[in-house]
Amino acid sequence: MTERLEQTKIMHRIVQHNGTIYLGGIVADDTTASMTEQTSQICKKIDKYLALAGSDKSKLLSAQLFITDMSKKDEMNTAWTEWVPASDLPARATVGVADLGSPTTLIEVVVTAHL
Amino acid sequence: MTERLEQTKIMHRIVQHNGTIYLGGIVADDTTASMTEQTSQICKKIDKYLALAGSDKSKLLSAQLFITDMSKKDEMNTAWTEWVPASDLPARATVGVADLGSPTTLIEVVVTAHL
Amino acid sequence: MTERLEQTKIMHRIVQHNGTIYLGGIVADDTTASMTEQTSQICKKIDKYLALAGSDKSKLLSAQLFITDMSKKDEMNTAWTEWVPASDLPARATVGVADLGSPTTLIEVVVTAHL
Repeated sequence: MTERLEQTKIMHRIVQHNGTIYLGGIVADDTTASMTEQTSQICKKIDKYLALAGSDKSKLLSAQLFITDMSKKDEMNTAWTEWVPASDLPARATVGVADLGSPTTLIEVVVTAHL
Repeated sequence: MTERLEQTKIMHRIVQHNGTIYLGGIVADDTTASMTEQTSQICKKIDKYLALAGSDKSKLLSAQLFITDMSKKDEMNTAWTEWVPASDLPARATVGVADLGSPTTLIEVVVTAHL
Repeated sequence: MTERLEQTKIMHRIVQHNGTIYLGGIVADDTTASMTEQTSQICKKIDKYLALAGSDKSKLLSAQLFITDMSKKDEMNTAWTEWVPASDLPARATVGVADLGSPTTLIEVVVTAHL
């Protein structure tokens, strides 16, 4: 069974199949904010989408964090580790990329989780 | 059960395990084409590989679109939304990257789907 | 059942759920080494993490290779194809990115596998 939720023009923000949940890439709504704040905004949105899918952050499997300024990785990690309890941290990769759609978008996060 | 199909020197283009299908990264064959056309070429290749795996675009789970020129995102989305019916759109992330192997390669797409 | 192993401050290097294994992004320990050598170091670390999860490189499903210098892709492939037997090659995408955390880090690899 496949469940698709939160449709936009170009994706479903949430797709669940066979107990695995795939979220679309998430950026902050307010990209004038700092890296820490953008990351926190994204984490709140992940909470919201996982709740809609019937899951939560204790069930994260993997995360990819695309960031445009690797020098701000520590700022990002501050928000990240405040958000996920240490025992629940998913597998993670952080990759420094060229462009996330606007000059002030510092981070985009893609996660998978389970039901 | 794991099924691997379409072997190249460095990957299998299609790997299926336990009902989940992983495709290797796909670029256009003709990279002199526009972003819209390169994206359409890629979508046709995804159709072909999913068919070989016994699936189709109505069963997409997630997609990552790596592009070298974010200003052409709308052109990309034109081809994308012509290809996937709105109700079947997968979770998606678009990331602007530095290099996709040749100066004219504008987009590379990675998808997962299910049987 | 979810199994998380090898906890760091910001992730678990290994997460297994329902028979699918997600590894965190892996870079070489010695980034003064060549692309071929960095890739070989990473492959050895993947072997180690997959063994801890109860799997091995014959059970790879997908791989994403993020590299900072696409001109060294052939060097990377030399180490890659020495490591994985042709019949076991996973689905793969190679993406040229801006920054992997240090100026000499040439490659970061993310893989999924199965039990």
